[in-house]
Amino acid sequence: MKKIIIFLFFISTSIFAQIDRVEPPFWYAGMHNPELQIMFYGKNIAENEVAVSNNIVIKDVKKTENPNYLFVTIDTKNVTAQDFVFSFSKNKKVTFTKKYSLKQRRENSASRKSYDASDLIYLVMSDRFANGNPKNDSDKSVTEKGNRSLPGGRHGGDIAGMIQHLDYLKELGATALWPTPLCEDNDKAYSYHTYGQSDVYKIDPRFGTNEEYVKLSAELHKRDMKLIMDYVTNHWGAQHWMMKDLPTYEWVHQFPGYAQTNYRMTTQFDPNASQIDTKMCMDGWFVKSMPDLNQSNPLVNTYLKQNAIWWIEYADLDGFRVDTYSYCDKKGIAEWTKAVTDEYPNFNIVGEVWMHDQAQMAYWQKDSKIAAIQGYNSYLPSVMDFTLNDVFAKVFNEDNGKWNEGMINVYENFTNDFLYPNINSIMTFVENHDTNRFNEIYQKDLSKYKMAMTLLATARGIPQIYYGSEIGMAGNKDKDGDAAIRQDFPGGWAGDSNNAFAKAGRTAEQQQFFDFSAQLFNWRKSNDAVHFGKMKHYIPENNVYVYFRYTDSKSVMVVINNNKESKTFPPARFQESISNYKTGNDVLSGKTIDLKNDIAIEGKSVLILELK
Amino acid sequence: MKKIIIFLFFISTSIFAQIDRVEPPFWYAGMHNPELQIMFYGKNIAENEVAVSNNIVIKDVKKTENPNYLFVTIDTKNVTAQDFVFSFSKNKKVTFTKKYSLKQRRENSASRKSYDASDLIYLVMSDRFANGNPKNDSDKSVTEKGNRSLPGGRHGGDIAGMIQHLDYLKELGATALWPTPLCEDNDKAYSYHTYGQSDVYKIDPRFGTNEEYVKLSAELHKRDMKLIMDYVTNHWGAQHWMMKDLPTYEWVHQFPGYAQTNYRMTTQFDPNASQIDTKMCMDGWFVKSMPDLNQSNPLVNTYLKQNAIWWIEYADLDGFRVDTYSYCDKKGIAEWTKAVTDEYPNFNIVGEVWMHDQAQMAYWQKDSKIAAIQGYNSYLPSVMDFTLNDVFAKVFNEDNGKWNEGMINVYENFTNDFLYPNINSIMTFVENHDTNRFNEIYQKDLSKYKMAMTLLATARGIPQIYYGSEIGMAGNKDKDGDAAIRQDFPGGWAGDSNNAFAKAGRTAEQQQFFDFSAQLFNWRKSNDAVHFGKMKHYIPENNVYVYFRYTDSKSVMVVINNNKESKTFPPARFQESISNYKTGNDVLSGKTIDLKNDIAIEGKSVLILELK
Repeated sequence: MKKIIIFLFFISTSIFAQIDRVEPPFWYAGMHNPELQIMFYGKNIAENEVAVSNNIVIKDVKKTENPNYLFVTIDTKNVTAQDFVFSFSKNKKVTFTKKYSLKQRRENSASRKSYDASDLIYLVMSDRFANGNPKNDSDKSVTEKGNRSLPGGRHGGDIAGMIQHLDYLKELGATALWPTPLCEDNDKAYSYHTYGQSDVYKIDPRFGTNEEYVKLSAELHKRDMKLIMDYVTNHWGAQHWMMKDLPTYEWVHQFPGYAQTNYRMTTQFDPNASQIDTKMCMDGWFVKSMPDLNQSNPLVNTYLKQNAIWWIEYADLDGFRVDTYSYCDKKGIAEWTKAVTDEYPNFNIVGEVWMHDQAQMAYWQKDSKIAAIQGYNSYLPSVMDFTLNDVFAKVFNEDNGKWNEGMINVYENFTNDFLYPNINSIMTFVENHDTNRFNEIYQKDLSKYKMAMTLLATARGIPQIYYGSEIGMAGNKDKDGDAAIRQDFPGGWAGDSNNAFAKAGRTAEQQQFFDFSAQLFNWRKSNDAVHFGKMKHYIPENNVYVYFRYTDSKSVMVVINNNKESKTFPPARFQESISNYKTGNDVLSGKTIDLKNDIAIEGKSVLILELK
Repeated sequence: MKKIIIFLFFISTSIFAQIDRVEPPFWYAGMHNPELQIMFYGKNIAENEVAVSNNIVIKDVKKTENPNYLFVTIDTKNVTAQDFVFSFSKNKKVTFTKKYSLKQRRENSASRKSYDASDLIYLVMSDRFANGNPKNDSDKSVTEKGNRSLPGGRHGGDIAGMIQHLDYLKELGATALWPTPLCEDNDKAYSYHTYGQSDVYKIDPRFGTNEEYVKLSAELHKRDMKLIMDYVTNHWGAQHWMMKDLPTYEWVHQFPGYAQTNYRMTTQFDPNASQIDTKMCMDGWFVKSMPDLNQSNPLVNTYLKQNAIWWIEYADLDGFRVDTYSYCDKKGIAEWTKAVTDEYPNFNIVGEVWMHDQAQMAYWQKDSKIAAIQGYNSYLPSVMDFTLNDVFAKVFNEDNGKWNEGMINVYENFTNDFLYPNINSIMTFVENHDTNRFNEIYQKDLSKYKMAMTLLATARGIPQIYYGSEIGMAGNKDKDGDAAIRQDFPGGWAGDSNNAFAKAGRTAEQQQFFDFSAQLFNWRKSNDAVHFGKMKHYIPENNVYVYFRYTDSKSVMVVINNNKESKTFPPARFQESISNYKTGNDVLSGKTIDLKNDIAIEGKSVLILELK
C-alpha cells in the first residue's frame, strides 16, 4: 500500500515538476570520485531549497546568475546502488520532487582495459558508413533531414549500419571502432560531421538511440572488439539546448562580438607569446557554429567530466578520442583528463593535437618531460603521430635518390621517439577524416598503399585506418572539400550498385586493396612483436628502409623498397638484429629467404619477414 | 758558477735529446685542474724512466704500444710558476733532460668574460679576408703554396690582414671576431679552410705565427672586441704529424679500410638506432682527409682538453666555436666541454650542431631537459640556431599570403624557445661559411637584407654575421661549390680594384649595404633590451610580424612587413606591450610615430621603434 502511494506521488510530482533536465540523468555507485554534481534545469528552479532522501549528504549547492539552474553536489561515498528523491521547496513547502538513481556498475568497470598498440582502430565518418536503418534518416525532433544528394548533407549512415558490418570489420582485421561523434548535432545544415553537438547525453536520432549505442558496444565486445567514443571537450554546437539559456555567461568564452581562434596552438607553450594571442587561441571559437566551452569554469569542467564518465559507464566504452584537444583551456583539459583516467586508470584517451613538430606534440602526452619544463602535465595517455602522417603524404613519390627525400623521412620521424613519454601509445595513421585521402594523393597506386599500410602495421604505435582506405577509396579534398574525403562507403546504402562490404560486390581493384589489407591486418593480430616489441631501424640506404620489431623470443624484419627498381643488398649490415636467426618467412608471399644470402626486393614493394 | 754548469748541461742534453715534441709545450700555474698530462715524443722514449725536479710529483706515467710516446702526469697543485726539469734515464743513468715551464697566468684569467648576446660576431674565412702579409703566402715548411687563381687554393688571407682591418670591423659594429681555424693544415691541396689541422699547437705559417695570433687577440681587446677560436675536436688532418706515428692505434677511429660518417646525427640519441649506425656516425670520418679523433680514449681527450685550455690561456681567448660538435664521441665531447668550462666558468663555447629540428638542437645545450631524458648533459653553453637559418633562406620570398608561408615561419621558430635551456645563448645567423649566401638567394635585394639583418640584430640570441654580407657579397654554392661562398673580400689584396674596406673604394651598392649594416649594428651595441631583454611577439597577420624586446625600463618594437605592398594597422592589438609608452622613435629613419595612431609601414621594410 505504501509503495503505491509513493508511486502515485512520483507520478503527480513528475507531472507538475518544474524540472526540464537533470544531468547526468543517473549515476553509478562506487565511483572513485564520490562527489557528484547534478545539474537541475527548470524555470526559476534556483528559487527553491533542495533536500534529498535516504540520508544522502548534500555537500554543496551552487547557483549562478541564471535562476533556471541549480548545481547540487552530493556525496556518494559508501552509498550503494539505490533510488532516492530530491525535493525542492519554497517557504519550507515542497513544491516538487525528482527521483534520482545510483546504479550498479558493471563488474571490474573501473579497471576496464582499453585500446592499445595491439589494436587496429577503424575510424568511420558515422553519417557516411552504412545506413542500417533508413527510417531514422529524417527524425522529426531534429532540423536537418536526410538528403544523400547534398555533399554536406545528412546521408543516413547510422549505428544500425555499423552493427550490420561489424563482421566486415572483423574480416578486415580491425579490432576497435572509432565512429565520429554520435551525440545529437541539431545544426540546421552541415550537421553530418556531428562535432557541433546539441545534446551530449543523447545519441542523435538520425544515428539511432542511446540503447542502440549500448548495443553497438555489446556487439563489438561479443566479437572481442572495442568501442572508442569521439569526445568533444572544446566546444558544443550553437544549437546546444543550453546555449539558448546559458547557466552562466562564462559557460562559453564570450567576446564583444564573435571571435574565432587563431588556430596557432604554439601559443599554449610559447614563452614569447603575447597574452592576447594565447587567449584568442584557447578561447576563440573553432568556427562560428561551435561555441567554445570554458573548461576553466569548475561547473563546466565538472559537467564535462561527468558526461564523459557517464558515457564510459553507460555504454561500456573502451576508450576516447578527444577532438581539438590542444584548443581547450590548458589547465582545464588536464583536470578533465586526469578526472577521467583517475576513474579508469587503464582507459586510453588519444587527443587530437594536430601539430607538425614532435616536441610540440610530445608536450601533450602524459608525463611529458618537455611539458615538465613548464610544470605542465596533460595526463593525456595518447597523442596522434601527425608528423608521420605528413611523411605518408609525400614519401612514396620520392624516389630520385636525394639526400633528404624518400624513406629517410620515415626513418627520421622515428628518431625523435624518445621525446614522447610513451611511444607505444602514439596513434599512427595514413589518413583520417580531416586529411587528404592517401589513395587520392597516390592515385590508387596499390604498391604505394602496400608500403604505407605495411609501415602502419609494423611500426610502433597504435595503428588507425580510415573507412574506405582498405578498398582504395579516394577523393580530392583540395578540390571538393571535406565531402570528397567523406564519401559514402559503397554498399552501405540499399540499392548501391557497388557493394564493397562483400567479395561478390567488389570491383577487382577494391578486392586487391581489401585482400592485401585483410591479410596484413589479420597477420598483425597474431604477432605481438609488432605490438609492443622494441624497434630497431637502420638508416635507409638507396631509399630502402629496413627495420626490426622484436621481443626476447621473436623478431620481424621489415624491408621497404621505395625505388621503382628492384634492389639487392647483403644482410651483413643488420648483423646485430639477425645473428640469432637463419631464415625469414615472408608474411605476404609465404616465401622463405635465407639470411646468409643477399636480400632481393622488387621495386616499390615490401617484405615482412618473420625470422626463424 | 753552479748556474753556468746547469746551463751548459741543458745545452748539451738538448743537443742530444731524444725528444722531438713536448705537448703542451708549457703550462700555467694555478689551474683549476691541477693534473697536467705532458706528452713526450721521441724515438723509443718509452724505454726511459722519467723523473722531475723541484719536488714536483709525478702522478702517473702512461705508455702505449708505440714506444715513441710517454704520457707523464704531474700534480701542479700549489706549484707556483717556475721552470723545472724532466730527466729521462735508462739503467738508472740519465740519458737526457727536458726543461718545462709553468708560467704565470694573466690576472683574473679563470674568470674571464666571454662573448654573449650583447656581441655581434664577425666570422671570417681566414684565407679569404685580407692578405696583410704577402710574404707568408707560400711558407717552405708547408706543402701547399699560395695560388689565388685556384678557387680551392690558398689565397693568402692571414692574421696580419685581420689586424689591419679591425677598425673596419669596429666601424661596422662587430664586437667579436671568429676566424675559421688558424692552426697549421698541411694538406697537399684544398687546405685553405684549415679544418684538417696538422699541428694544433702552431698557427699555420701562411696565416702567421703564434705570436701574431696573440697580437690579434691583444689588438681586439684594445678595441674592446673579442677573439673566438674555431676549435676542432672531431678530427685532425691526415697530415697531422702524429698520424705518421700514432701514439696508439685507437687514437683515431680505425676501420678495416676507410669508413666515412653517415652524417645522420640523430643516431646519437635515437633509441631505435642500430648500434652500427650510431657507431658509424660518431666514429666514421667526416672526409677521407680528416682522421676522426677518438675522444673516448682518455689520452686523446686529455690531449684535446689541454690543447684547448692552452690556447685560451696563451692567446687570451674570449670564446670558442667548436666544429662538427655533434659528430664527436658523445660522452667524450661532454667531458671535454666540462673540463674547459670548469677552468673558465664564464667561457662561452658554441657548438656546431647542424640539425633541422629544435628539440634535436636543444638536446646539445648545457642542462638540456631533453637530453636529461636520456641522462645526458653536454655542458655546451651555446648551440646555433640552424632552424632560423633555414627560415632566413626562404621566408623573404614568401609574400603570397598562404597560411604557412611568410613571417609565420620566423614566428614559429621562436615559439619553441622554451626547448632550449638558455635561449639567450643561441647563436643566430643569416649565413655562414657552409651555407648558401643570403645575397645570392635574394639576388642582392637590399630590402630583404634589411629585413633579415633587422631580425638578426633584434631577436634573442647571439648574432653572427659572415664576412662580406655587409657589402652584399653573393656567390652560388649550389653551382660553384664552397669557393663561391668563400670569395676574397674585395680590398683585402694589394691591387684589388675594388676596396670595400674603405668608403672611397666601395661601389654604390656596397655602400648601401654597408651603411645600413653599420647603422643597425652600432645602434644594437647601445640598446641592452635587444641583448638580454625579454621577447614578446604577436602572431603575424597579413605577413607583418611585430615583436618587442623589453626590460623593466626599455622597450624596442620591431615591425617587419614582408609584403610587397605597404601596410597600415591599428596598434590596439599590442596593448599589453605598448600601454606604458606614447611614441616610438624609428632607429633607422629617425622619425617618431604616435602609438595612438595607426602604424604605417612600406612594403618589404622594417621599423625599429624605441618606445618612449
